Formats: sequence, C-alpha cells, structure tokens
Amino acid sequence: MREVRVSLVRSDDLSYSVLIGRGLLGEVLADAQRLHPRRRVFLLTDANVRAAGHVAALTGDRPVAEYVIDPPGEVSKHIGTVTEIVEAMESLKFGRDSLLVALGGGTVGDIGGFAAAIFKRGVPYVQVPTTTVAQADSSVGGKVGVDSRLSKNAYGVFKQPARVYVDVATLATLDDRAYRAGLVESVKHAMIADPAYFEYLETHLDALLARDPAALESVAERNVTIKARVVEQDVEEQGARRVLNYGHTVGHAVESASGYRLLHGEALALGILAAARIAEEVCRADESVRRRSGVLLGKLGMPAKLPPEINAGALLEIMSRDKKALEARPRFVLLDRLGHAREENGEYVRAVAPGVLAKALAELEG
Amino acid sequence: MREVRVSLVRSDDLSYSVLIGRGLLGEVLADAQRLHPRRRVFLLTDANVRAAGHVAALTGDRPVAEYVIDPPGEVSKHIGTVTEIVEAMESLKFGRDSLLVALGGGTVGDIGGFAAAIFKRGVPYVQVPTTTVAQADSSVGGKVGVDSRLSKNAYGVFKQPARVYVDVATLATLDDRAYRAGLVESVKHAMIADPAYFEYLETHLDALLARDPAALESVAERNVTIKARVVEQDVEEQGARRVLNYGHTVGHAVESASGYRLLHGEALALGILAAARIAEEVCRADESVRRRSGVLLGKLGMPAKLPPEINAGALLEIMSRDKKALEARPRFVLLDRLGHAREENGEYVRAVAPGVLAKALAELEG
Repeated sequence: MREVRVSLVRSDDLSYSVLIGRGLLGEVLADAQRLHPRRRVFLLTDANVRAAGHVAALTGDRPVAEYVIDPPGEVSKHIGTVTEIVEAMESLKFGRDSLLVALGGGTVGDIGGFAAAIFKRGVPYVQVPTTTVAQADSSVGGKVGVDSRLSKNAYGVFKQPARVYVDVATLATLDDRAYRAGLVESVKHAMIADPAYFEYLETHLDALLARDPAALESVAERNVTIKARVVEQDVEEQGARRVLNYGHTVGHAVESASGYRLLHGEALALGILAAARIAEEVCRADESVRRRSGVLLGKLGMPAKLPPEINAGALLEIMSRDKKALEARPRFVLLDRLGHAREENGEYVRAVAPGVLAKALAELEG
Repeated sequence: MREVRVSLVRSDDLSYSVLIGRGLLGEVLADAQRLHPRRRVFLLTDANVRAAGHVAALTGDRPVAEYVIDPPGEVSKHIGTVTEIVEAMESLKFGRDSLLVALGGGTVGDIGGFAAAIFKRGVPYVQVPTTTVAQADSSVGGKVGVDSRLSKNAYGVFKQPARVYVDVATLATLDDRAYRAGLVESVKHAMIADPAYFEYLETHLDALLARDPAALESVAERNVTIKARVVEQDVEEQGARRVLNYGHTVGHAVESASGYRLLHGEALALGILAAARIAEEVCRADESVRRRSGVLLGKLGMPAKLPPEINAGALLEIMSRDKKALEARPRFVLLDRLGHAREENGEYVRAVAPGVLAKALAELEG
C-alpha cells in the first residue's frame, strides 16, 4: 500500500466586531460595504420585521434585492426555505460576490447564516438582530442551521458572521411577551459568568422593562462580551462553550413538551430553576442562587411552575432521548455559585442521579 | 456606538492520508473505525457501484446502514438527494457520532462530502473513489457540493475528508468510455506540474489501457501527490489552486454545449488542446506541448475536433457568461512550457484577447 499525505494546517482569523448602538440601522449597508467592497448585498428578512419598518430603516432609498421569509418564525426554519433563498439569489444573478445581510430574529439569522455558508462554497454574511433573544445570544457565535422534516437543527454548520450590528432601537416594536422572554438569555449569561451583571439586572429591571435605550445598550454589551469570551475559548462547542446551555436541558424538554406553545425564554426560565435546584443537591450551591433568579425571572413575567398539562414524567422521557444525553442520562451545566459554572476534568456538563432530577422536576409541577 | 470584538484566530490541522493499493476495499471499514473509534458508519454509494460488487467487497459480512443513489450520476447530484440522505440517517438514529463513507465516483463523493459537512454541524467522512476521474482528482481536495434546479454546484463548501482510500482494483469494472475519459485528468496533472510524469504516461499508455494494477497505482500516486501539493498551497482556491482548472475554461463550455452528452474528460481533452494553442500565441509556448498532448489524448480515444453540432460561436457565448469570466472575458490557465503554469503577480489565470481565443476555437471545428 502507498500513502500520500495531504498536509493542511490552516490558520484562519475569523475575528469580527459587534457594533452596538441605537438607531444605527441606516448605517449598516454603508458600513458592510466598506468591510466588503465590490460585493453585492442580498437582504434576508421576514414579514414581521418588514412590517415593523426595519427594512425601510435599513435600506433607505436604496434598492436592495431581498427575500422575505413568510410566515416568520420556526415554522419556516427548514431546508426548503434555504433552497428558495438560493434559487432567488441565482435568479437575480447573485454569485460568489454576494454579501448576505440577515435582518431579524434568531430564525432569520440561523437561516441566513446557513444559506451564506453553503451558497457557492460560502459567501460572507452580517447579522442585524432585531429581538432580545437574537441580540443577546444567537447573532454571535456562528451556530447556524435549519430543521429537517424529522428534527430540529438537522442541518447546520459553524459559520461566523463578518460583523454584527445590534440596534437596540429595533426592540421598541417587539411584542411584550417575546421581548420579556428574550431577556431570560441575559439572566442566563449573568448567572454563568458575571455576578455584578446579575446585580445590574436586579437593580435596572424597571428600566429594561421600559425598554430604556441606555440600559438596553449596557445589557447588549455585557451579553455580547460574555458570549464572545466563551466562544473564543471553544468555537465548536467541544467543552467550555457548553456552559451557554445552562438551563437548556430541562428548558428544551419543556419547550418540546409544550408543543412550542411556550416561548424558548419561558421554557428556559423553568430550566434555570430546575438546574439551580439540582446544583443545591449536587454542588451544595447556596439556595440564594435559585431564590434570586426566581425573583428576577418572576418580575420578567416568566412562569415559576410547569403548565398543568406537562408533568415531570413526560420531561424525563424527552430528556433521556436527547442527543446530548449519555446512555439516556440527561446532562446538566451546574453552578456551584452565582457566576461560576462547575468544571470537572475539562467537562462542563455532568449526568445527574435520576432521583435528584425527578425531585427537582416534581418541585416545578403546579 | 459601542464595539465588542470577538477574537477568533483558529488553527486547524486538516491533514489526511490518501492510501493507494489494490484490493484494499475490504480493509476500509476497519481502518476508518480505527481512525474514528465509536463513530457509527453510514455508507453512501450508487446503484452502479453496488451492481459492480464494490459494496459487498467493502462491507463483507458486516451489516452497514446505507443510502444508494439511484439513478447514479449527475442527474441525482442535487439538493433533494442530500435531504433524502439526511432524513435516511435521522430515521436510522444517526447523529453527531456518524462517520460517512462515500463509495463511488465523483458524484457520490461530491454529494457525500456535502451531506457530511451540513449534517448536525458536520461529521467526518472518508472518500473511497471507484472511477478514474474520482481517483485522480475529485476525491482529494475537499471541494464538495450539489446542484440547484438553476445551476451546477450552487450549493457547496470546502470540507476535507478524514482519509481517502484509492483501490485501483475497482477500476476493473468501469466501462471503457468512462475509464478512458477519466485518464484525461492524469494528462492534465502531468501537463501542469510534472514533465517526467507526462513521459511516463506516454511510455506506459498500453499498460494503463490494459488496466495494469502496478501502472494504475503509480499513476494514482502521482496524481494524488500533484493535487495534494497544489491544494496545500491554496486550500480555498484563491490563487495557485486555479492551475487545476487547466483546460477547463473551454472544457466546461464544450461539456455544457454538448448537453452533457460528452463526458467531462472528453470535453476537457478539447479544452486542453485549445489552451495549448492559446499559449503558443500568448506565452510563445512551444508547439510540441500541443502536439504531444494531442497524440496522448488521441491514443486515449479522445476527440480532437468539436462535434459537428457545436461551433466556436456557441462556445464563446457560454464562456462569456461563466462566473469565472472577468467582464465577460473568459480567463485561462496557460502553460509556458510542459509542466509549468504561467504566473503573473500571483495570478494563475489571465484573460485572452478575443481574436486569439476565436482562432483557437475555430481550429477545433471539425
């Protein structure tokens, strides 16, 4: 047998800036074109974002080729939408010289980043998140993808954006329920990484609920900084990045059990309470972590109990089937104190004894 | 405006081995599993490869989950096939722990590599090429993708395989026309990089046409080595890798104008003759390059003239629309001597005066 070695050691600078401000939508296209001169802009957005006037604010008088996802939301986050976007770009003669601008919430960003990654072996894209969830979390980090008919995020890649533009003014038009649920990601960030930020959220909650732009800018900067520092350590989620899944083990199960009638943030709030309860048993975490987060999440209007139609048994069943479970035992990110995730031998997740988990879930039952 | 920098400088070792031998199909699965212990093997192949007995030779008595592309060939190289493969994997509970084995010609490798790249944010894959084209060229280098309804390779990424297994014994079952046309890639490699290899092809052509395993192993090793050295310099085809497109400017146009009735290698042979003719005008290349390659390609049974239904004007029209053209002027890799592609200021392609191109094409008319 003969052997030929293909030696490919690659070093890539994937760094990018996240720009945060209010009323900066009108500057996005000019700035993105300075970053990528000679590329043609293709805009991806959805019908809600368009109706809210954000497309007009972004493009001004300039004619820009676009694809509008309709209906908006998870229901359109599938591979069929991606093929429609690619065919729309081809019909308009877009090629390798494209620059994709994803203007909208997490769904638009996930679809747009994935389309950019697979169109003609990859074109750059920028994220312009317009929801509390997307501004706090999904627009940074490069996890993009869509669903198949059989499962969520069956298709996906890591593809970092070329730049992210966080305009907190876009949050003014968001409906109250989505706005509040999106702030749960901020609570999560504070809990895993920054006790001072947690205190800031406790003391500035009224300003945040009033959508005060100065407070929103501060929160956006802290969220993005926390997310950036975690992603920098572990781009492809081999270890440290898993702390971002805090609260998500139970959260995803609740979201799924509710048939997605609960918003991601609402389900995540319950997941955070469960994880905090488990940490009291497993890590001897102080009960104040759960108490303080419960108060904060309560003020955001998040549920403290499961809806009556969901019980602990159903959640256990869903979690044991989760792809992150190990031998059917669901695994958790746990905090041994506020701002500090437990790590053991480089592992940030751990399986939890069935009895401990069942007890924590039972306490969430209404 | 506030700015948060996400600093992601990544260094990845994407190196891999290409193993070349005869009768090594039976060792592939065990070797791949040593490389990736604990991953579940999913086999992608096509109906021709299966009928030729290569699947049985690969799997032996072992039950392996598989997807068989049917009909084989370009007609199935589209995004719909990728979604079918992903759904087949999901139905069989394959997840992030998958290892995809692509057994077949260029189409199977292109589809398989792309499916592996986008399934659950990417799983590893190995290439087991079974045609002269795939063994010489497409199995190494990581260019993978599929067509949309509107254009070829509309979807694609760069995704390097984890290992490549070249079993020259698989070529024994290839039909004669495909076998011969695939050898044109070997002629191309020799022309752009290695005059001694060109002489080897001239002197060993009878052995190659008789599919002598020792000669085929030598050729495979030289092809893979040339391709590897080029790809190592320029993974994502920013510059030097473009030399691999030698002969392809006219070749692709001929292939397209024939409605894909000509095989890629047959069209490429005409493209090589045209590029050699142009180099005589533009680079004062010696006429012997064209003469010797003409003799070699002729012995392979390749056409020396365009089919009567294709004329130079039609080719010019197709080339001016090509995405690699610059301001509608098609660009060429040119050899100033056998084994040496011309480079100017880091550019390996150059636009050619319309008169020169028209003349070269006119000489190809039958």
